[in-house]
Amino acid sequence: MNQYAFGIDLGGTTVKIGFFSSEGILLDKWEIPTRKENNGEQILPDIGRAVLSYLEEHGLSAGDLLGVGIDVPGAVLEEGIVNRCANLGWGVVHVADELSGMLGGIPIRVANDANAAALGEISRLREYSSIVMVTLGTGVGGGVIQNRQIVTGAFGAAGEIGHIPVCPEETEVCGCGKKGCLEQYASATGIVRLARKKLQETDRDSLLRQNGELSARKVLDAAKAGDELALELLEEVGEYLGRALASISCVLDPQAFVIGGGVSRAGEILINVIRKYYRKYAFHASRDTAFLLATLGNDAGMYGAVHMLF
Amino acid sequence: MNQYAFGIDLGGTTVKIGFFSSEGILLDKWEIPTRKENNGEQILPDIGRAVLSYLEEHGLSAGDLLGVGIDVPGAVLEEGIVNRCANLGWGVVHVADELSGMLGGIPIRVANDANAAALGEISRLREYSSIVMVTLGTGVGGGVIQNRQIVTGAFGAAGEIGHIPVCPEETEVCGCGKKGCLEQYASATGIVRLARKKLQETDRDSLLRQNGELSARKVLDAAKAGDELALELLEEVGEYLGRALASISCVLDPQAFVIGGGVSRAGEILINVIRKYYRKYAFHASRDTAFLLATLGNDAGMYGAVHMLF
Repeated sequence: MNQYAFGIDLGGTTVKIGFFSSEGILLDKWEIPTRKENNGEQILPDIGRAVLSYLEEHGLSAGDLLGVGIDVPGAVLEEGIVNRCANLGWGVVHVADELSGMLGGIPIRVANDANAAALGEISRLREYSSIVMVTLGTGVGGGVIQNRQIVTGAFGAAGEIGHIPVCPEETEVCGCGKKGCLEQYASATGIVRLARKKLQETDRDSLLRQNGELSARKVLDAAKAGDELALELLEEVGEYLGRALASISCVLDPQAFVIGGGVSRAGEILINVIRKYYRKYAFHASRDTAFLLATLGNDAGMYGAVHMLF
Repeated sequence: MNQYAFGIDLGGTTVKIGFFSSEGILLDKWEIPTRKENNGEQILPDIGRAVLSYLEEHGLSAGDLLGVGIDVPGAVLEEGIVNRCANLGWGVVHVADELSGMLGGIPIRVANDANAAALGEISRLREYSSIVMVTLGTGVGGGVIQNRQIVTGAFGAAGEIGHIPVCPEETEVCGCGKKGCLEQYASATGIVRLARKKLQETDRDSLLRQNGELSARKVLDAAKAGDELALELLEEVGEYLGRALASISCVLDPQAFVIGGGVSRAGEILINVIRKYYRKYAFHASRDTAFLLATLGNDAGMYGAVHMLF
């Protein structure tokens, strides 16, 4: 009884379903497509059916479950209610109630995907109880963990660190409608934007001018290869990030920053430049905050989702 | 039994002692001097004696106490140990153990003074569980409350919001050794600094050029009287503060900001300008965070200290 749990990462394209032991060990995982038609009305029924048929195939029932943790790409109110997920076509959806109804009333926990990823990462870090995760992908996302719990915030906006204002002089508009957000400099898109600007401002030679489209990866690879222009871009990105993380430490003073997302695949070269500027701007007491690379990749959401139950 | 508690605010000049009911009602308060000689070795014994003789006078004993909460002007490690208080002459002092030893082993809780003030303010705000307090005094202090509990931080530096980097171009040095900290613009000292600069840069007429020394109060009073130069300064201060608080919301998304300290006596004119810039820089979901003026004044520390016991 109660020896298993599901951790489900509900994304805009696929739903990643993880079957876990009650000790948090991943026993099995698979994906189903996210059917967004008709305002995504089939998404939760699809998940309910996937869970039930998995249980049946393995001679189990909902009564054998501790519960289901699920994350979604949108803001979550404390009570397991999702408030608009553009990516899923959802308006207000009572995720916890709906899933619980399909699964015999078992406990359902719901979180935002970036927050769940942060909880997933800390589930692997036994020595830490407070971290801030920074996800450098197409955008810049984040999750705040205090006492090994997700901080949601009054309006579901805790951990929106991509929208920390870092440059009041900015003239271009961020996806959120403001100007000068961290995301405009430190996301994959932001890095390409900075690179494009820099290449226009100068005619200095650079690997970035060679074959193919500009990408954040190309910038970081060129920096690793010693390309001067790419190294300057890396410093610029690192300064924005280091300064934003120093602000976070003046508020929360976390034990560690965990850096994830596609851009973080650059590894130590990126961490080192972020840390350099972090130490420049951080309050003296917090200068030695740990910097870690995320380790769970695309499974972080599933792990975090299930860990809300433990 | 256990129907009373002490809340003690240990400052660099005086110790404010509050005698509370177990419902958190202040029943009596008085002050004793802070004797800092010989590395402040008499401070805790003085407090112990003050508590014991008050109890004796009122026919009570330590057994009638729920405990003692105390705040100090320095960083506090989780275990009730203070790590250097320059203002008291202290190095590492085991405050909880020492006081508990003098008071028959009753529970002692210890906090940093700015954090205790934040907890004191939220003890009066039944409808909120997460706030960030901003104290605009000689410096800019802060306290972070989550789930009605103080957030201390990994290095005791949570709530050090006076040191959020807000101006990377700054050339003058902050008391902390960095450049461009919020405190350099939004503290009483910072406001005077900005005013002095502005008066030098222009020869425009202003109330600020009239009789007597410049002070933050003079700037804010002149702004209230419609003085153009003072109003420009108020906008400048409000923009730095509003932008810093918008950063905080991208991390924690608190329910409310509580503004206290001497500068906050300016009241609504100050709150309004902070809120204006906050709304400009805040992530859209958090635009309606509440802004409140602190209400406990110099008693906030005492209230917060005692509320650690409840």
